[in-house]
Formats: sequence, structure tokens, C-alpha cells
Amino acid sequence: MLTSRTVTEFLDELASSSPAPGGGSVAALAGAIGAALTSMVCNLTIGKKKYADVQEEIQAVFAKSEELRKKLTILVEKDTEAFNAVMAAFGMAKSTEEEGKQRAAAIQQATKSATLVPLEVMSLCGDALSLSRVVAEKGNKNSASDVGVAALMFHAACGSAELNVRINLVSLKDEAFVRQTTEKARELTEKVKQLASETLLLVNRSINGA
Amino acid sequence: MLTSRTVTEFLDELASSSPAPGGGSVAALAGAIGAALTSMVCNLTIGKKKYADVQEEIQAVFAKSEELRKKLTILVEKDTEAFNAVMAAFGMAKSTEEEGKQRAAAIQQATKSATLVPLEVMSLCGDALSLSRVVAEKGNKNSASDVGVAALMFHAACGSAELNVRINLVSLKDEAFVRQTTEKARELTEKVKQLASETLLLVNRSINGA
Repeated sequence: MLTSRTVTEFLDELASSSPAPGGGSVAALAGAIGAALTSMVCNLTIGKKKYADVQEEIQAVFAKSEELRKKLTILVEKDTEAFNAVMAAFGMAKSTEEEGKQRAAAIQQATKSATLVPLEVMSLCGDALSLSRVVAEKGNKNSASDVGVAALMFHAACGSAELNVRINLVSLKDEAFVRQTTEKARELTEKVKQLASETLLLVNRSINGA
Repeated sequence: MLTSRTVTEFLDELASSSPAPGGGSVAALAGAIGAALTSMVCNLTIGKKKYADVQEEIQAVFAKSEELRKKLTILVEKDTEAFNAVMAAFGMAKSTEEEGKQRAAAIQQATKSATLVPLEVMSLCGDALSLSRVVAEKGNKNSASDVGVAALMFHAACGSAELNVRINLVSLKDEAFVRQTTEKARELTEKVKQLASETLLLVNRSINGA
């Protein structure tokens, strides 16, 4: 498991000449980091008298954020597996016409799967940003910059995942799938952009003490 | 060392109720991840006949990128140390007027140091993005999305570091330091924004096969 390695080993593996893990796994990891930071600010709000009015809401946000962190962490591994499956399909025999057809179909199928992993990362980042927005509004103001960093991580994770969706779509022949996925990615990009901007506005107000 | 922990342990530590590591260490880590991805695309360009013309340039970019990755990885730890030093200063005795003065001075000094770490992260991200830009233009086109993810990570790392610079500046009394640091952070933000946008333009052209 990639996430069982030390941070240093993970970075070494990323920098190596092996194309996986690559940007797709990084997108999921950036999302998991954002969720971890959101959870931290929940933890720094829970039990604080100053934030007595929002305890129940922040407890609920914390539970959801931890759930999203778990899902995003799993996708770090899944993205690399999906990429390796595409490579395996490219490695299939193509000596006969029949083999060539089977190989082409396997490449298409594996590439579709490899598209759906970053699309899920985008969707989870949208959900996670809804939580950060609540924490930016109601959580511990001393940790405003941490919520802001969470928002920036989700935004970058979503943009990174979107690049991975698009580079995979280029080689897909199923036009309906390409159209639907493109539309879904566009919607998620808009949602994340809007939520990140709202969250950062709240963060900046807290930092400036307004 | 934070980076000697597994990725999962690091995320758990981040999510915990301890305020450090927090957004400052994440900013440095996001930069290190961006540098690792830039190095990966260099590795996937080096030795490839199709890119024979740029071998020397990409070799040089790779060496610089690995240097920046090392520096950014060290800053993951440094940011948490700098934050803990601020907390330690806040914990100093303040029973007498003299102790109060010493404590206040120590807080100011530690906060200045805690401001300089994310400022260095911003500066290194600017340097690193100059490298990604070269790789986006001349490196392996199959890895275009990975260079794009690197650019998005540097951009988010720089923005994250900037939030950490600002939240620290709020409590500093040395007006000249505040002015200079604010100005430097503004310049670095502009530089990174410009380079990230140029890099992503090249990445999008590669993905669209133009």
C-alpha cells in the first residue's frame, strides 16, 4: 500500500521513473490532506466553551470529514491500480486480429475505470469543501489559516483530478460516456470553485479580525 | 521526523487535536509533492529518443527539482518546529514585569521565525514552477497531466504558505518587518500565479493534442 510507506518513501516513489503513482494519486492525497486539516480544526473547536453553540454541528462535520478522509485515502491506491490496469491492457498480445480486438476493448474498459477514479475524487472534494465552509464560518478562528489551506488543497485536488479525467477521455471512443463525464467534471469544477472561494472569503475575514 | 512516518500516520497526526503539524507543514509538503512530480516527468523524458534534443536541459531541470524537493521536505518539519517555538514562548512565565517583557519579546521573535518558514516555501515554489514550466514545454507529452498537477500543487502550496505568513504577521509589532514581508509575499504570489497559469496553458495544449 502506498499510504503504508513513509512520507519520504512516497515522495521518492513519486519522483521515480515509474509513471505510477503519479498525478492521479496525488489528487486523491491532496484531498485526504484537506480532509485531515478540516478534521483538525473540528478537533480544536470541540470542547471549547467559546464555541459551545456549535458543538453538535461541528461534531457532525467531524464525523463526515473523517469518512471523506478515509475514502480519499483509499483512492490514492485505487488511482495507481487503475493506471496499472491500463498499462496491463496495453501489454496484451496483438498478434492475431482477434487478439487485437480483445486488447483494444480491454484498453477502452480499463481507461473508463481510470477516468472514474479521479471523477470520484472531484465529487468527494466537493462534499469535503461543503464541510470546510461550515468550519470556516463556525469553527475555531485561531485555526482560520488551516481551514484556508484545506480549501486550497481541495481546490488543487479537484483541478488535478480534472486533468486526469481529461487526459483519459482523449483516448475513449464511447461518445456518450465522454459527453456525460465531461459534463459531470464541468459541474464539479464549478461547485468546487464556488465553495473554495466562499470558504477563503470567510478565512480572510477571520485572519483580518473582521 | 514527520516525514519518517507513514502517509497514514502523517494524516492521522494532521487530523488530531494537536495544532501542529498544521497548514504550514502542509504547504511545504504540497510543494515537495509538486517537485517530486516534476522530477518524475524529467525521469520519463530522460533517455527517450523522441526528446533527444532536450536531454541536457531536462537533466539540469531534474537536478534542480530534486534539490528543491529536498529543501521543501525539510520545511515540513521546520514549520512545525517554528510553530512549537511560538507556543513555547507563550508558555513562558509572566509573574513579574521583567518576565512579562521577556515573554513578549520571545513571542515576537518566535513569530518572526514562524513567518519566515512559509515565506521560504513561497519562494521555493516560485523557483520550482519555473522548472515545471520548462518540463510542460519540452518534457514527455504523455505526462502532461502530471506536470499540470505539479503546477496546481505549487500554486496551492504558495497560497497556503501565504495564509500562514499573514496569520503570523497580524500579531507582529515590527512594522518594517511586516511591510517588507507583506510586499515580498505579494511579489511571490504574483510570480507563482503567472508561472502556474503559463504552465497550465502548455499542459492543456498537450492534453488537447494541439
